[in-house]
Amino acid sequence: MKPSLHTSLSPALLPLYDVSSSIVVIIDVLRATSTIATALYNGARCVIPVDSVAKCIEIGRQIEGITAGERDGKIAEGLEHGNSPFEYPREFIEGKTLVLTTTNGTKLLHMALEKGAQRVITGAFSNLDAVCAYLSKQQQSVVLGCSAWKDRVNIEDTLCAGAIIHRLESAFEINCDSSKIAHTLYQDAKKDLFGFMRKQNASHYHRLSGYGLEEDIRYCLTPNVAGVLPVYNEGKLTSDLTIS
Amino acid sequence: MKPSLHTSLSPALLPLYDVSSSIVVIIDVLRATSTIATALYNGARCVIPVDSVAKCIEIGRQIEGITAGERDGKIAEGLEHGNSPFEYPREFIEGKTLVLTTTNGTKLLHMALEKGAQRVITGAFSNLDAVCAYLSKQQQSVVLGCSAWKDRVNIEDTLCAGAIIHRLESAFEINCDSSKIAHTLYQDAKKDLFGFMRKQNASHYHRLSGYGLEEDIRYCLTPNVAGVLPVYNEGKLTSDLTIS
Repeated sequence: MKPSLHTSLSPALLPLYDVSSSIVVIIDVLRATSTIATALYNGARCVIPVDSVAKCIEIGRQIEGITAGERDGKIAEGLEHGNSPFEYPREFIEGKTLVLTTTNGTKLLHMALEKGAQRVITGAFSNLDAVCAYLSKQQQSVVLGCSAWKDRVNIEDTLCAGAIIHRLESAFEINCDSSKIAHTLYQDAKKDLFGFMRKQNASHYHRLSGYGLEEDIRYCLTPNVAGVLPVYNEGKLTSDLTIS
Repeated sequence: MKPSLHTSLSPALLPLYDVSSSIVVIIDVLRATSTIATALYNGARCVIPVDSVAKCIEIGRQIEGITAGERDGKIAEGLEHGNSPFEYPREFIEGKTLVLTTTNGTKLLHMALEKGAQRVITGAFSNLDAVCAYLSKQQQSVVLGCSAWKDRVNIEDTLCAGAIIHRLESAFEINCDSSKIAHTLYQDAKKDLFGFMRKQNASHYHRLSGYGLEEDIRYCLTPNVAGVLPVYNEGKLTSDLTIS
């Protein structure tokens, strides 16, 4: 029998799924999980995801890490860096530890941990193939967890879930309408993800492009520019290639 | 300025939307809101939606109404009738009161009332044009409330929300990714809604067709077979044509 795959379109829906026997993929395309993949791809030692700005500052001080994060799409007060993948090129991030807090992605990650997820990884278009290769090897149930925006379903995370499903549908049992909706949406958009986001005037596209972050959006919708697999273990996300 | 339109893809997401200044459209295509439209179209005096089987039996006895409802897609124990629109032809239902409880639809309706919705109506493909005509006349904010299945997003309610949006998009300000996802899904499916549901093997299609209810599904996906506008007022849904 094939393992099951479900999609949770919002953190508010995560309690509906049995994460305790599943690998949970945290998806926050704009921009947390794109930035996590990028920082690790560029040689960061690890990324420590924390769920509050206060904790970010405290841990950053303790371990001499780089504190970063956003609230409502802007650098959070008291932190050194934001949530743009372009802030973490190799010459800056290599060998360092990034302590990261974001509005939606790190919150969902902690929810999944609290609910006893068997394993937590992060996914984005940036590391799409690495995520799919890992999931197809594990032969275990999967929950794709979209981070959404303050619990409101968003287009880009749904599209990324759809992209994963598109690559894995034959390997999993998918009795999940949310997954089918995500897959249908992706098939509509896949030829030009950026164009689709712009045409739909997706809420997050609108928000970020208003801040002049169109290049961030383009980058975050480009598949496989940061082909690593961020795996959560004891408080840290590391690119543990041996795990796959 | 145009009024806003939002879509809540699951009852678990309804608290995210400001229903207190909105008309809320309860959508439960398979089968509660299709059956409500059909019963009223066929002359039922009113439909009393209740959120428990016990209350259904009690009220049914008090007012000598017809008790009906399902739990998990089957007639609930202690009730006389089920949730199939075919159970309510004119020769049976005309002039009578239907007391109805269902797994998802009546639950969402009561949630919307508790949250102080300005007005609650019910929508389905069966009464699509009546709903759209009403909404476009009111010039008021709208929340499309999908009943889903035990809080899990489903394809058919999302499609119905998409069908409403398809007809109303120019009349409303739609800054809502869920609405855009619903609209995209509908545009993919609109040529053959039944074929789309079957091809996707939608969870509810699978469940009901397993009970031999394919004809119910076909009926519930057919637009405008029961062109009434069920409006909630003081505990009852009536087809109040004067309201539009």
